[in-house]
Amino acid sequence: MLGKNVWTIADGYMSDTTKGELVSHEAVCVLNLSGSDANINITVFFEDRDPIRNIKAVCKNERTNHIRLDKVVLDDGTVIPRNTPYALLVESDQPIIVQVSRLDVTQPEYALMTTIAY
Amino acid sequence: MLGKNVWTIADGYMSDTTKGELVSHEAVCVLNLSGSDANINITVFFEDRDPIRNIKAVCKNERTNHIRLDKVVLDDGTVIPRNTPYALLVESDQPIIVQVSRLDVTQPEYALMTTIAY
Amino acid sequence: MLGKNVWTIADGYMSDTTKGELVSHEAVCVLNLSGSDANINITVFFEDRDPIRNIKAVCKNERTNHIRLDKVVLDDGTVIPRNTPYALLVESDQPIIVQVSRLDVTQPEYALMTTIAY
Amino acid sequence: MLGKNVWTIADGYMSDTTKGELVSHEAVCVLNLSGSDANINITVFFEDRDPIRNIKAVCKNERTNHIRLDKVVLDDGTVIPRNTPYALLVESDQPIIVQVSRLDVTQPEYALMTTIAY
Repeated sequence: MLGKNVWTIADGYMSDTTKGELVSHEAVCVLNLSGSDANINITVFFEDRDPIRNIKAVCKNERTNHIRLDKVVLDDGTVIPRNTPYALLVESDQPIIVQVSRLDVTQPEYALMTTIAY
Repeated sequence: MLGKNVWTIADGYMSDTTKGELVSHEAVCVLNLSGSDANINITVFFEDRDPIRNIKAVCKNERTNHIRLDKVVLDDGTVIPRNTPYALLVESDQPIIVQVSRLDVTQPEYALMTTIAY
Repeated sequence: MLGKNVWTIADGYMSDTTKGELVSHEAVCVLNLSGSDANINITVFFEDRDPIRNIKAVCKNERTNHIRLDKVVLDDGTVIPRNTPYALLVESDQPIIVQVSRLDVTQPEYALMTTIAY
Repeated sequence: MLGKNVWTIADGYMSDTTKGELVSHEAVCVLNLSGSDANINITVFFEDRDPIRNIKAVCKNERTNHIRLDKVVLDDGTVIPRNTPYALLVESDQPIIVQVSRLDVTQPEYALMTTIAY
């Protein structure tokens, strides 16, 4: 079956800048071809503080979900801080494919980067 | 034999912007070193609608094909929508190598990103 | 256990340019989910000179460390030269995940690139 | 031993544009930790013409070689054409690590992309 249940990404970062309609952000892009809906749990790791755990998302079968990390809000109001290096662990109860991309608009023109997760 | 028959890419997106001669697009770049021509079938998955299936392409042996996703038109007129997150499944009857790249010209200067598919 | 003890990256380069608060740099981004603190050793290889060895770093368990290569200074004052192609070997006593990213500000607007290490 | 003897990259492209001191180009970045010098042979594949074969390079042991594809000239004067999609096969008599990066300066500000080869 295509994909894996556990993925990691070591370079996460969102600056606090916006330009017009664009806002710096990262997205955890998921593809689910497993045959069942996938329940996803994301943990965010930092350099000098405890992880943020239990960010939940769903990716239905034969669907993609581009999870915007700048829009995550936990029940207690926790958000992923900006201007702060982080890393990600993405766990799923079904095998999925994960790719992470960053849009950065720190300067007038923006930059994009992406990589398949590990 | 070099390559695989099935590849996936989780982060697909084409904005609707153009700048001069450049238009935002993604390309599924294929290399075929299998010894036979490769018949390729691409499926496009979305967040909240059914997939677009049966996008056909050929990559001859010892050739590359940089398949422009913004130029795909199915027999019934279907095109891949812009400003819409998607993901890709690339299937081939011969082992191939697949890399996907995006050129985005949303702002005056453009951005590039690429990754080997999974 | 997630990750590997040895990672390589073949394309390293830092230009000597800065723009406002941004300075061109590369970062070796590490995630450690091994259960123990990871002691990391980085070697830098060049095209026409001997390697720089024994760049040390630590990534604690359940933490990330985005190691800025432009800030590395060895005890004898050695730094990684700018405007010079290099490659990296990252070795750890615990399995880790490594991704390397570059921020380049050679021109007024900057560019980003990233890839999972090998 | 670290690395592989055969690598491929499916998305190759060099525009014919320059800006100031920067020229659009791609580089095949090699790291050799095999213990012996590596003799490298690069083949360039196109969409609609025969491959360019026998581009030779050397990467010494414990050295990197960032092979600039825009500077390749074969004995018969052949160069890799610009504004033309291509793909690459990189073969080595020693295991090596290969990463390919593109600098594009089609517009006033440039873009960077990179990926580990397959």
